[in-house]
Amino acid sequence: MIFSSDNWAGAHPVIAESLVKAAGGFASAYGTSDLDKKAGNALSEVFEREVAVFFVATGTAANSLALASANRPGGQVFCHREAHVYVDECGAPEFFSHGAKLSAIDGTVGKMRPDLLEKQIRHSRAGGVHGGQPMAITMTQATEAGTVYSLAEIEAIAAIAKAEKLPLHMDGARFANALVSLGTTPAEMTWKRGIDLLSFGGTKNGCWCAEALILFDTSKAEEMGYLRKRSAQLFSKSRFIAAQFDAYLEDGLWLDLARHANGMANELAKGIEASESARLAWPTGSNELFVILKKETAAKLKAQGAVFYDWPVPQTLTDVAEDEGLYRLVTSFATKAEDVRQFIAAC
Amino acid sequence: MIFSSDNWAGAHPVIAESLVKAAGGFASAYGTSDLDKKAGNALSEVFEREVAVFFVATGTAANSLALASANRPGGQVFCHREAHVYVDECGAPEFFSHGAKLSAIDGTVGKMRPDLLEKQIRHSRAGGVHGGQPMAITMTQATEAGTVYSLAEIEAIAAIAKAEKLPLHMDGARFANALVSLGTTPAEMTWKRGIDLLSFGGTKNGCWCAEALILFDTSKAEEMGYLRKRSAQLFSKSRFIAAQFDAYLEDGLWLDLARHANGMANELAKGIEASESARLAWPTGSNELFVILKKETAAKLKAQGAVFYDWPVPQTLTDVAEDEGLYRLVTSFATKAEDVRQFIAAC
Amino acid sequence: MIFSSDNWAGAHPVIAESLVKAAGGFASAYGTSDLDKKAGNALSEVFEREVAVFFVATGTAANSLALASANRPGGQVFCHREAHVYVDECGAPEFFSHGAKLSAIDGTVGKMRPDLLEKQIRHSRAGGVHGGQPMAITMTQATEAGTVYSLAEIEAIAAIAKAEKLPLHMDGARFANALVSLGTTPAEMTWKRGIDLLSFGGTKNGCWCAEALILFDTSKAEEMGYLRKRSAQLFSKSRFIAAQFDAYLEDGLWLDLARHANGMANELAKGIEASESARLAWPTGSNELFVILKKETAAKLKAQGAVFYDWPVPQTLTDVAEDEGLYRLVTSFATKAEDVRQFIAAC
Amino acid sequence: MIFSSDNWAGAHPVIAESLVKAAGGFASAYGTSDLDKKAGNALSEVFEREVAVFFVATGTAANSLALASANRPGGQVFCHREAHVYVDECGAPEFFSHGAKLSAIDGTVGKMRPDLLEKQIRHSRAGGVHGGQPMAITMTQATEAGTVYSLAEIEAIAAIAKAEKLPLHMDGARFANALVSLGTTPAEMTWKRGIDLLSFGGTKNGCWCAEALILFDTSKAEEMGYLRKRSAQLFSKSRFIAAQFDAYLEDGLWLDLARHANGMANELAKGIEASESARLAWPTGSNELFVILKKETAAKLKAQGAVFYDWPVPQTLTDVAEDEGLYRLVTSFATKAEDVRQFIAAC
Repeated sequence: MIFSSDNWAGAHPVIAESLVKAAGGFASAYGTSDLDKKAGNALSEVFEREVAVFFVATGTAANSLALASANRPGGQVFCHREAHVYVDECGAPEFFSHGAKLSAIDGTVGKMRPDLLEKQIRHSRAGGVHGGQPMAITMTQATEAGTVYSLAEIEAIAAIAKAEKLPLHMDGARFANALVSLGTTPAEMTWKRGIDLLSFGGTKNGCWCAEALILFDTSKAEEMGYLRKRSAQLFSKSRFIAAQFDAYLEDGLWLDLARHANGMANELAKGIEASESARLAWPTGSNELFVILKKETAAKLKAQGAVFYDWPVPQTLTDVAEDEGLYRLVTSFATKAEDVRQFIAAC
Repeated sequence: MIFSSDNWAGAHPVIAESLVKAAGGFASAYGTSDLDKKAGNALSEVFEREVAVFFVATGTAANSLALASANRPGGQVFCHREAHVYVDECGAPEFFSHGAKLSAIDGTVGKMRPDLLEKQIRHSRAGGVHGGQPMAITMTQATEAGTVYSLAEIEAIAAIAKAEKLPLHMDGARFANALVSLGTTPAEMTWKRGIDLLSFGGTKNGCWCAEALILFDTSKAEEMGYLRKRSAQLFSKSRFIAAQFDAYLEDGLWLDLARHANGMANELAKGIEASESARLAWPTGSNELFVILKKETAAKLKAQGAVFYDWPVPQTLTDVAEDEGLYRLVTSFATKAEDVRQFIAAC
Repeated sequence: MIFSSDNWAGAHPVIAESLVKAAGGFASAYGTSDLDKKAGNALSEVFEREVAVFFVATGTAANSLALASANRPGGQVFCHREAHVYVDECGAPEFFSHGAKLSAIDGTVGKMRPDLLEKQIRHSRAGGVHGGQPMAITMTQATEAGTVYSLAEIEAIAAIAKAEKLPLHMDGARFANALVSLGTTPAEMTWKRGIDLLSFGGTKNGCWCAEALILFDTSKAEEMGYLRKRSAQLFSKSRFIAAQFDAYLEDGLWLDLARHANGMANELAKGIEASESARLAWPTGSNELFVILKKETAAKLKAQGAVFYDWPVPQTLTDVAEDEGLYRLVTSFATKAEDVRQFIAAC
Repeated sequence: MIFSSDNWAGAHPVIAESLVKAAGGFASAYGTSDLDKKAGNALSEVFEREVAVFFVATGTAANSLALASANRPGGQVFCHREAHVYVDECGAPEFFSHGAKLSAIDGTVGKMRPDLLEKQIRHSRAGGVHGGQPMAITMTQATEAGTVYSLAEIEAIAAIAKAEKLPLHMDGARFANALVSLGTTPAEMTWKRGIDLLSFGGTKNGCWCAEALILFDTSKAEEMGYLRKRSAQLFSKSRFIAAQFDAYLEDGLWLDLARHANGMANELAKGIEASESARLAWPTGSNELFVILKKETAAKLKAQGAVFYDWPVPQTLTDVAEDEGLYRLVTSFATKAEDVRQFIAAC
């Protein structure tokens, strides 16, 4: 009963096999091989337009490079208070962007409130040269709270970005989970709504290590080539990333894997809603659930082998009793229905 | 006849298979899994002491983090003029160390001349606060010229580092090739000679992506954990690196692969020495050869399918005629004896 | 009626004359002249112990260098939400410290609440390598809200710094104003309470340009020498700063100037408290007042030649009516009693 | 007999008095006062066009900000091997530009050889993404060797900058000395030749602290405002710089001071050329001389109270005997004819 994180899973067999297949023979290095090109083209097809693709080692790298490309002295990046870039990246966005300030925007269930975002941007501009200058907005889809911005919600953020002339980045570490949750297309969820740069994550959804920074504005690709290399993120045997994306995108495998993960989370959610000792803190829709349990129930589940994390209670969640706690459950392509059933039965 | 670079090879089958074997099941993330620990322990055994091991995405990352850990304002790093950090890393060492200056030391066949190194360090100190301050020395083993520092030569550099109280880093992108060339042990070639930090490369010698920064002084490990994370180099599914190192180090596979690559280079060298239209620019000993060919011979070889790079003629190489060029040939674990024979026959 | 800022004043005649006196003759450069040493010694006397003194160009430089000296990867600096470093320095602290994150601590009247500070530090540590690491605490004395931390309040912050092994910095842009307000000694208000680094400002209190970073731990002085130089803050004709500090500290001129400024603010406060159309937003004690005025009264005052800034209403100030605004009034060594009387009469 | 450096002089009386005159009254801060505007306009007149002017604390700051404004990842700046930015700024240019690499160009008497500059830029481009990218060229006028680029020589460098699409910066720490040496106008020596950014130094030529970064392309002014502030180089009482420039530029005082300094150097040069125990290492033309003396002569002069620095012998200077040394003599606005006579008599 492993619900700790989707990065506790390994790699899907088809993706692991793709690496074996690509292991033989020689190919040119540093992202120039045929397989690299094939994977790049596959991404252009997925997004229904030409995109510039940069494979990198981690989601943190993709996010940080996206922000670095918007770099301005005294620059400020606007993100949700619980965003990965704000909370979980050890200053990488600040390092890559030479000291940008991340400015936290509040909002329930992991989503920036557009009015607060707008207010904060104006506040930032009001300080003149002393206050620094806005440089980018970044949003997370699916959010760190497991929720999914609707297309209209993305559009509302994008409208602010456009009005303020700020590039808009999407952290898509769980892009596939959000996509199948909305039942829309990659193009509709990104550039058609106003997204300029995308961290496209494959690692959490069945790859070993497959993260790509995608630029919808290809005029910035040349500079990004240098940014990636000087950040030590250019793989020599880049085709080992390409081989993963190749298998990941072929025949919609990536969507199948996300549907499985989301489906498992949905089963969990149903069981929890029906339970008397557990309840959802808020509805999600992706492969992450946030659950309020009696502390003794949580302890019992852990004793039975369930693995999941305690989660800090956000200020906006006010109905957690003294003897209760907030817990996060994450499913993945590798989650088994049997484990879900067992968890529900025990809680 | 691929002699362009050892990073044009793919992955050795045993290593690719190790990834498949590790793909199933769940394991804790960010370098804390059992497989991560196993690979870490294997490296401690290889080096005959406790070491702190940090998996990273690229050799550039390992080098840059090593230098970042020595960071000082106005800091200067001393390296050979042809070193990878100086020539081929797009400013990553400077970026990671917040603007350190790399100071180039001359010397033939890719090796720093100890007297020039010493002179340059003293010169640097002479400028007081205006001139900045020495912060580290980095040497490459095997060198970018394909040669190998002898143990005595390493010791001579290390003596300067010790006298000047500077950390000494070894860029071991081709560590295994140097090691089997010297016929010594990893411990003898590193910390027993005075090396403090090592970039231990597996990628060029049969892995997909297996680079580790090794600290012999484990007291610096805690800080390095933060340095790695804020540089976006901490893999979530870190065990995919561990699985590669696990197979790489088991039963001495890594040494066998390096012996093969060096052996192939040796065969090439013999053939070239016997040829009338080609000669070695200097003897090497590892898996890289630098060859002087008539330009028309080089063109003919390329027309026959040989792949190899033209190389800039260093100032110290004075006997290259107008109609000749300098070329680099690199062998790897994947080089076939048949290709070597074919190349020799054609040149 | 200039109450816009103490940096709208020029220089006190005695200080300007000191520059004229020092203009002749030759003296060694870069902080090594006799006058530099004299000013340094004067500061050691003022603080009743040996201190290391670094003249810099701006208060922002002093603050940023203080934080840079505490630099850690993924580092977090804790400061009040309204602190100058957080709001008004255009990312200089982040730039100088290679991307540190400034973490805002709440508290009324410009003072960090110790319990919130402690909680935030613990929260930061809880994230492990992902969450980064605490690296310093900085407090402002007098605060940006014009208030003054009592000695006991400084001690409470210092106790947390000590327990958490974090260096404690004081931004003393208005150090003299706070000092005469408390009626204590420089030593008592700083190192005897646990302050490790001090930005000692003279510019706002009658100098042209006289800012010093003071290290109570002189073992860090050597490194600071390099930090200052590589930040382009080492003056060649450093004695022009020394000449100002020399006159500033002689015969307690600095304290007289601060007493005058505070006294003028006190007169203003009394007049405002007696007025029916104005009231203090909170009591201060230094040379800054925050006043709630009817917007039409403010407009009338400005029409009569009064110069002062509108101020954003902090969330903790809840009794400002629709037709009222918050305004800041700052006095200085150059404020005239006549202007104070005129202002009071008009409001 | 002080010939150590022009920054050992104090301030010219007219400039010191200008500070006294400006000390009274109130004026808006951060570069917005009437006096700031007046000094800015004076510089526009001096350069016969609209320029954007940024006062900063040091020449190092002006140089580093100029390079920061050209910032590119993996960027390389080309400068002479003896340039101040390369040798004497403790990594400030690298820090301000987030890790740019300074690439040293050789050439006698302090001047870059255009052919070597061109070759190095091409070499840099040849490395592709691994080798980084050219980002700026910086030249020093007068040079660190005391010589002066002719207008044709500036044009030759500028032609390369233009062809390579690189911004061209001039470090004018001794701008006035070069200008009166050439007998040309500020416009002719800068933007009319192709200079894009200028560090305009007043400190060495009679000011206390008066350095300005001048942008001939005013479209970059907005960004520079943020760069300066986040580098902690924006003075609050900026008018104390303006007051110096105001007096400096009025009635050609700055040119008179430079003529005096150059004239004193010329007298020294004549005396040295006539001497049997001393000779010029190379002719200069500005206010710096480089002299070859018998070591015992140098010791004797120092014993008699002459102050001047030993200087490292550049590789290109080959006729210095064992018992001789190279020495630098610098004159300034404050150098007295009597000291020059005394020096000549003694050598």
